Amino acid sequence: MSEALRVALAGLGTVGAGVIKLLDENRELIERRAGRPIEITAVSARDRSRDRGVDLSPFAWEDDSAALAARADVDVVAELIGGSDGPALNLARDTLKAGKSFVTANKAMIAHHGLELAEMAEKAKVALKYEAAVAGGIPVIKGLREGAAANAITSVYGILNGTCNYILTEMESAGGDFSDVLAEAQALGYAEADPTFDIDGIDAAHKLAILASLSFGTALDFDSVATSGIRQVIAADIAEARALGFKVRLVGMAEANGGKLFQRVHCCLVPRKHPLAHVAGSLNAIVAQGNFVGRLFFEGAGAGEGPTASAVVADLIDVARGEYGPAFAMPFARLTTSDPVNVGERRGRAYLRFAVHDRPGVLAEITAAMRDANVSIESMIQRGGAAPSEGSDDVVHLIMVTHEGPERCVADALERLRGSQSLAGEPMLMHILDL
Amino acid sequence: MSEALRVALAGLGTVGAGVIKLLDENRELIERRAGRPIEITAVSARDRSRDRGVDLSPFAWEDDSAALAARADVDVVAELIGGSDGPALNLARDTLKAGKSFVTANKAMIAHHGLELAEMAEKAKVALKYEAAVAGGIPVIKGLREGAAANAITSVYGILNGTCNYILTEMESAGGDFSDVLAEAQALGYAEADPTFDIDGIDAAHKLAILASLSFGTALDFDSVATSGIRQVIAADIAEARALGFKVRLVGMAEANGGKLFQRVHCCLVPRKHPLAHVAGSLNAIVAQGNFVGRLFFEGAGAGEGPTASAVVADLIDVARGEYGPAFAMPFARLTTSDPVNVGERRGRAYLRFAVHDRPGVLAEITAAMRDANVSIESMIQRGGAAPSEGSDDVVHLIMVTHEGPERCVADALERLRGSQSLAGEPMLMHILDL
Repeated sequence: MSEALRVALAGLGTVGAGVIKLLDENRELIERRAGRPIEITAVSARDRSRDRGVDLSPFAWEDDSAALAARADVDVVAELIGGSDGPALNLARDTLKAGKSFVTANKAMIAHHGLELAEMAEKAKVALKYEAAVAGGIPVIKGLREGAAANAITSVYGILNGTCNYILTEMESAGGDFSDVLAEAQALGYAEADPTFDIDGIDAAHKLAILASLSFGTALDFDSVATSGIRQVIAADIAEARALGFKVRLVGMAEANGGKLFQRVHCCLVPRKHPLAHVAGSLNAIVAQGNFVGRLFFEGAGAGEGPTASAVVADLIDVARGEYGPAFAMPFARLTTSDPVNVGERRGRAYLRFAVHDRPGVLAEITAAMRDANVSIESMIQRGGAAPSEGSDDVVHLIMVTHEGPERCVADALERLRGSQSLAGEPMLMHILDL
Repeated sequence: MSEALRVALAGLGTVGAGVIKLLDENRELIERRAGRPIEITAVSARDRSRDRGVDLSPFAWEDDSAALAARADVDVVAELIGGSDGPALNLARDTLKAGKSFVTANKAMIAHHGLELAEMAEKAKVALKYEAAVAGGIPVIKGLREGAAANAITSVYGILNGTCNYILTEMESAGGDFSDVLAEAQALGYAEADPTFDIDGIDAAHKLAILASLSFGTALDFDSVATSGIRQVIAADIAEARALGFKVRLVGMAEANGGKLFQRVHCCLVPRKHPLAHVAGSLNAIVAQGNFVGRLFFEGAGAGEGPTASAVVADLIDVARGEYGPAFAMPFARLTTSDPVNVGERRGRAYLRFAVHDRPGVLAEITAAMRDANVSIESMIQRGGAAPSEGSDDVVHLIMVTHEGPERCVADALERLRGSQSLAGEPMLMHILDL
């Protein structure tokens, strides 16, 4: 029997406990697959005394995670602390400097510091692996890095945040506006007490930046991801989208075209026949479009103890097998830099919802703004009766779907209407996924 | 720049030509990802003069593929000839004996001889890779071998034959019985002139045996795959299934349970909400259920020049990167053997269609057989009017869905009705996918 791969675990939250359970429960199978045992030797967390439902007594304990990297009985560190900086980043740097491999579930840290860490890992000839950082248990990092490696990827997009998808599909099946469903989701544990990172799209943006780098061979560029979330979605949007043949999803999308990079997290209308329209609840799913393979679709659990532990241990098995190369699929020096695309020139269809006062001239004002901005309207719906969510009796919803055109035209139309007395609130814009 | 990986290509049909095009078109990207160039040095096919739309002049030509393995300018052979034995198998053995890596798209050869070849590759410390053999461009071999490696897989199943799925979904959308749609599919090039391997489930069975071995760590056992196809499906089955909330799909399914292995390719009723129900046209899709990751779903093109070439070249990139281990995810010696499960003890629901003569006592006879066999009926439909496909005026269809029970009971009921004068044809049995 070959020597064991000795693992230090930093962070013993849900995922850390899951990794301990998995390595225990599937021990024999993993040894057969990895070609050698994978053993945890040391662990670290904030609170030693907390009951995590796992026996920590076989492992050395470190109060300070920073001590793990230097331990002589550790070959690889698995970081499950979280946070883009602080202890997680320090541990990553120390581990790679010590010439040891580093496995992480930390999307924020990879999105912000992945390039620096990839370069360090390359110089040290060790692995930097982060399958668990994107879409939990779905092996999409491997799928893109290796499975689709023969392809020029033209677009990669998907449902990257389970909390948002849970809320949107609950609004779909049970009705209700965003804030009601969020409160329910929090009560059920599907959304955090402070859900900002999830519902404002930041978590999805972290993952998207990673997928884009890996897919296009471009250096990570989190700062240029245009990011918005799901706070503005109301029950009427879901209902009107359905009537038009769509589902509402928070879609992270990246495209590479002529050296320009497009990255956006935004609410989209997804055609009912598109695979993303069937992704329900807290599932995640990713589509990659390659120039030879065509459309690949991956779906699975995007979070949770078991799925995330599955991805962390898959990385550990790769390390045990000695199967690891550059973190972003190619040597650090060969990643290109891309300018962000000029979004205004991007073409597409849009869904617009205006909350308007129900009085003469309003329709004329809005349609004139559209005409003056060169926006062509494909369909328009105005339902009679008040729109209660706007809190005023005379407010109704006006829904429009535009023909395909440059995004700058829609932005121009909205600019023309800014401050209009006809509007009872901010217009809602969603893009239509025509892929 | 590192030295090129030098590839010999055996077989220049659609896929072979696709590999040449892909390596040419994505050359620079592949070199960045693989860390070194991948160059074809020699090719072989039956007919040198045929126009394949690619320039063969840069490559050495061998009339006999057997000569490729021994060439000094070849590091790895990609076999795209096909056939479980004959030249493909000889070339595989010669290549591995010569201590060179072997990449193949040949599902029949891997299903029949994969174990022998895996052992040879292991002894020679070279790669045996076959991503293209299962589900074309979908990286499911890698997804199971590595992505889901941390999991005990309890079941793996999916739509493994694009021709069958095309025919079934055409029957769904356009109507018509199997034979009409097959003729159309042949005219359009979606089905072969001799479609036996596809429509009788043999191609799917080859792929299923490979997936099962990889998923469960069991030695390949193609002979124990219970295999049937789609010839018996008629328009009424599709319509009745739809009325009951299902789609009809040819599903290859494998389960491992207590050292017993279940492998079957059979028409199934798939609930409308199941991901396999959305798989349309010639797409392939695979579901794997892991004990930590839960349900993973992969979908994409299962055949064709581009997708299959994508998978072949992904394997070549792995070889170029030096990332390859045991062919079936664990060393040859650690694969276990399993006895086939006793299918009769397997529990499930079944769909039954009887073509019956429309006269007194028929219903009583059939329901009595069900009762005597301990089959409990969940729902039953008899539509008035003739069933024209049986070619007789007095024949109608009787459709039943059973409650969950052991499969042997349904088999017993059908046995009791064998030769009955009430039946105008063979009963049709489909299993219901309740996963």
